[in-house]
Amino acid sequence: MTRTLIRKSLSIAGLAALGGVLLVSPAAAEVSEEVTYVFNTTLFLIGGFLVMWMAAGFAMLEAGLVRTKNVAMQSLKNITLYSIACLTYMLIGYNLMYPGDAWMSQGWLGAFSVTSLPGHEGEDITYASVGSDFFFQLVFCATTASIVSGTLAERIKLWPFLAFTVLLTAFIYPIQGSWKWGGGWLDALGFNDFAGSTIVHSAGGWAALIGAVILGARKGKYGADGRIHPMPGSNLTLATLGTFILWLGWFGFNGASQLALGSLGDASDVARIFANTNTAAAGGAITALILTQVIYKKADLTMVLNGALAGLVSITAEPLTPTLVESMMIGAVGGVIVVFVVPLLDKIRIDDVVGAIPVHLCAGIWGTLAVPLTNGDASFSAQIIGILAIGIFVSVASAIFWLLIKTFIGLRVSEEEEDMGLDKAELGMEAYPEFGRGSQTF
Amino acid sequence: MTRTLIRKSLSIAGLAALGGVLLVSPAAAEVSEEVTYVFNTTLFLIGGFLVMWMAAGFAMLEAGLVRTKNVAMQSLKNITLYSIACLTYMLIGYNLMYPGDAWMSQGWLGAFSVTSLPGHEGEDITYASVGSDFFFQLVFCATTASIVSGTLAERIKLWPFLAFTVLLTAFIYPIQGSWKWGGGWLDALGFNDFAGSTIVHSAGGWAALIGAVILGARKGKYGADGRIHPMPGSNLTLATLGTFILWLGWFGFNGASQLALGSLGDASDVARIFANTNTAAAGGAITALILTQVIYKKADLTMVLNGALAGLVSITAEPLTPTLVESMMIGAVGGVIVVFVVPLLDKIRIDDVVGAIPVHLCAGIWGTLAVPLTNGDASFSAQIIGILAIGIFVSVASAIFWLLIKTFIGLRVSEEEEDMGLDKAELGMEAYPEFGRGSQTF
Amino acid sequence: MTRTLIRKSLSIAGLAALGGVLLVSPAAAEVSEEVTYVFNTTLFLIGGFLVMWMAAGFAMLEAGLVRTKNVAMQSLKNITLYSIACLTYMLIGYNLMYPGDAWMSQGWLGAFSVTSLPGHEGEDITYASVGSDFFFQLVFCATTASIVSGTLAERIKLWPFLAFTVLLTAFIYPIQGSWKWGGGWLDALGFNDFAGSTIVHSAGGWAALIGAVILGARKGKYGADGRIHPMPGSNLTLATLGTFILWLGWFGFNGASQLALGSLGDASDVARIFANTNTAAAGGAITALILTQVIYKKADLTMVLNGALAGLVSITAEPLTPTLVESMMIGAVGGVIVVFVVPLLDKIRIDDVVGAIPVHLCAGIWGTLAVPLTNGDASFSAQIIGILAIGIFVSVASAIFWLLIKTFIGLRVSEEEEDMGLDKAELGMEAYPEFGRGSQTF
Repeated sequence: MTRTLIRKSLSIAGLAALGGVLLVSPAAAEVSEEVTYVFNTTLFLIGGFLVMWMAAGFAMLEAGLVRTKNVAMQSLKNITLYSIACLTYMLIGYNLMYPGDAWMSQGWLGAFSVTSLPGHEGEDITYASVGSDFFFQLVFCATTASIVSGTLAERIKLWPFLAFTVLLTAFIYPIQGSWKWGGGWLDALGFNDFAGSTIVHSAGGWAALIGAVILGARKGKYGADGRIHPMPGSNLTLATLGTFILWLGWFGFNGASQLALGSLGDASDVARIFANTNTAAAGGAITALILTQVIYKKADLTMVLNGALAGLVSITAEPLTPTLVESMMIGAVGGVIVVFVVPLLDKIRIDDVVGAIPVHLCAGIWGTLAVPLTNGDASFSAQIIGILAIGIFVSVASAIFWLLIKTFIGLRVSEEEEDMGLDKAELGMEAYPEFGRGSQTF
Repeated sequence: MTRTLIRKSLSIAGLAALGGVLLVSPAAAEVSEEVTYVFNTTLFLIGGFLVMWMAAGFAMLEAGLVRTKNVAMQSLKNITLYSIACLTYMLIGYNLMYPGDAWMSQGWLGAFSVTSLPGHEGEDITYASVGSDFFFQLVFCATTASIVSGTLAERIKLWPFLAFTVLLTAFIYPIQGSWKWGGGWLDALGFNDFAGSTIVHSAGGWAALIGAVILGARKGKYGADGRIHPMPGSNLTLATLGTFILWLGWFGFNGASQLALGSLGDASDVARIFANTNTAAAGGAITALILTQVIYKKADLTMVLNGALAGLVSITAEPLTPTLVESMMIGAVGGVIVVFVVPLLDKIRIDDVVGAIPVHLCAGIWGTLAVPLTNGDASFSAQIIGILAIGIFVSVASAIFWLLIKTFIGLRVSEEEEDMGLDKAELGMEAYPEFGRGSQTF
Repeated sequence: MTRTLIRKSLSIAGLAALGGVLLVSPAAAEVSEEVTYVFNTTLFLIGGFLVMWMAAGFAMLEAGLVRTKNVAMQSLKNITLYSIACLTYMLIGYNLMYPGDAWMSQGWLGAFSVTSLPGHEGEDITYASVGSDFFFQLVFCATTASIVSGTLAERIKLWPFLAFTVLLTAFIYPIQGSWKWGGGWLDALGFNDFAGSTIVHSAGGWAALIGAVILGARKGKYGADGRIHPMPGSNLTLATLGTFILWLGWFGFNGASQLALGSLGDASDVARIFANTNTAAAGGAITALILTQVIYKKADLTMVLNGALAGLVSITAEPLTPTLVESMMIGAVGGVIVVFVVPLLDKIRIDDVVGAIPVHLCAGIWGTLAVPLTNGDASFSAQIIGILAIGIFVSVASAIFWLLIKTFIGLRVSEEEEDMGLDKAELGMEAYPEFGRGSQTF
């Protein structure tokens, strides 16, 4: 069978004629509950492993954007933070975020208990396997933690960073997440965030921003004379690889957030989400490419990578309702944000090593605000309330935790250790022991 | 349940006995239309993300095979060309390639219009989601563009390359693709190209070859004394990673080109395609390994990598009808092609930086010619007509576009910039700023 | 639809109430045989490509953990061993391992014949496509071979290593695998090994151990004065990437070993396997992190990577019956094993370049022994018999093959070649020709 024979009936011309005839509603008779259950579970599993893979994407992106002397540490932080999220989310986070009927208050705080997966008889045949849902929700929690590690790289100590990761993944992320996805007060209010522009990305971004302010910039980054010293990443192919991994993972991130696959309607929606997500990323990348060429007269690889990521973050709050062209434009605005916010942060001396704040925080806010542009069920007021509520909560909670850690354990390596690099200073190893060093030693 | 209990009934001995009893035909009663629709859509989405991932494979392969001074540029070109393909294919290419009933001529040219995805009521329940089809077809277009970038690396300017990418993905690829997959004249003629040995791989290869001729070789590659100066790739682990990524992605490339999954017959075919694709790649790799050992007395990693890829390209025109052993042999011929064509190109002074011409063009032609060997429905005459028609069209169109770009914008960096490397010259950045340079500076 | 609306009914509180009502048994009426067939086939294909991807994981892990001068060779060995496994398993291994009714003896030795895939009429609608099963089983065979290459890196010649790979994948792995998964005597005995802690991981580990003993340590690794010279890996980001790839691939390794997806029960089980597998890896990583900090006062990235892998190996024998917390603990013991066995091996002067023996052999034994702790159908005696039988068989067969190869071809490069590095000595190329060398030249 050729592609042709099948494709012919799908022509643009023919589609109008087909509409309305094919399917009125996916009746229960068409797809049995059990088949739908299997499809939905499969969607979560595929989506879950794709989002798990994003942990590798963050690791490569960040390892590529720090300097050689901090690369082993950045790799360690990334694999460790993912592991921590796996354990804390099981022990505390999941039930805190999805308390079902076990809310401890009116939509503000969920249940504290260790997650256990039911046997076959405990499964809900009208939804999907609890295990698949747990796995899928867990990798979102891990993503939030991944966002923080890049911003704070090259000067934060290992253990204080991990301590914050425990608190972020056990408490901060699940509590604010429950407000919407757990059926809490923001959900009741009509706040819309399909796959987490706010709940994942700007939440992670706020935690990173507050951390960056409390931690301070890398030594030598901002000169006394007002000059900004560039500290170029050590391995831009790794950063490129990391971006491609994240782009790939995002199909799971957004696509499986449809939460169902087992009907024509759901499958069609997941497909549209894939196409829109991809288009938004492309829009962000090309916009950053053109803007850096126009403004700086040189295309900038790092900006293009972050532009693609910002496009992805932007479309995450609503990857279903936009058309393809609208998706491109939503992503393009993400690209604009990156190109303008990166230098702005430097101007106010907030040292964000990998650009996570423009990509995840700023584009996350933009994406959340853009939902009502294409989704008639969303309102700007609910979106703004959600952005502010989560922003304030995450910022305040993060500030408290960062300051507690700073006070009782300390956050920053010494100046000598920072010069030496965290790899030698804290780990006693090097990521690339045999590759000679150039002259950039800052 | 152990693997055993299930596997026992699958024994080689037992299979004959089972045949004929199990299933006469997958009746509509067995799998409802809607379930089939969901399966088919799922196949496109999985295949689509796997082929999207091939963009990362090309990026790593090419970044690993160019010299350090051009690595950032090669990374940038790869992520940018993928992004461009996403946008041009949406804006022009998809409807040009799959015009359905909207052909502007008798199978030669499709419809110009921006793609938009239908709602649920516009979906064709007998096929799959339009969104999933669009996404799947789009990543094939991007693959075609990826093939070009490697050949022309290290001396083509960024923007002229991107301009060609726009033209390739918006016009050249979709028009020739429509001739077969869009239901055009080559399809009517009986030309067979299951997943694109010709339509994707040799099309990309022709565009690369013409570009290489017009662009000329890298400075110093071919000495006045007839000597060929090797310019070894800077990072062979990246090249290895890229090859593995491409191998992985090819399961989506070939497997999902079955275009259907939701019946015993289709699922069985997709599985056979997976097994054959994998076997052909192995055949290509091992053949290149043995040949380089025998001919040069040293196994050659780069040849083995390209041998695997040539095996994959070779099986792409017909991954379904060969047996496993035939697949191995079809792939092995691909490996032979790589080992002999790579030095041949150098002899005629065509400078193909990564070996894309032997891998994609030559093995693509071989694979297309090999279809009638195992597929009784194919004829050598139709295959040859298809190869020639597409080869001539892509070559002529590419030549016109390359020459137009050369005349009006210019194609090549200056000799000084080429010496300096495109990273510093055009981007003002380096991929590995801290890794010392060896003595190879050509 | 928000995540909330669906998730509400899944609350911990509500689950008890639901149990028993929802589903008594997944009746045949619920999911047709053909739909189940398609789901099962899809599971094998997805699992298969994920496990195939593990070959890239091993390649990156090992290329990152050897020194620069052996990196191209390690990359070549990895892509080649995968390719060899693809061909030998087709030509000999698959039917030897899964003889069905064609046993040549009472569960000790299967059938010698070339694998061919049946057409639609030869498929077993009650299971899954033979092609998908073949592909899935094949990638397990390749994984076993991947385990060996790392241990023996940096001093074994290319062709003797490949010769052993042929024998391992054609004979050793399939024969012992058939004892359990082919329905042989170990299966009859009640030995449990869900996805291969013993059959894949400790089998590969035994072959590696015997090889390491016969091959001897790298020159200079163990000083005459009893000192152990560290030979740090050249690229820890690649090693990190490799670990993430393996972690990702393991979802296919364990998840698809359920061998079925097309019912509520199977989908639920696959989901639980995903969650448990992920949790065990996290448990292994965090345990290694804490232990290295406590014991050595420095967290150790390589140990954490191997800790995660050991966690994965540990859960592989039984990823279904443990609870999440039990999975964490099973994985944590894997992490303990790594931290203590790595220095122990050095003490007895067995030179395992990448730590494959603690990770795959030792954690594999542990995981197999742990099955009866959570699975009431397993017995310690059967587990011990299985571990011993496979250990002895693989060790003896490997010893014979290694010694034969050593006698007739030779195993080791010369001391000069070892100093020079296998890349230059055997391949005449370098992985990173332009990156300067540091002072570590051992």
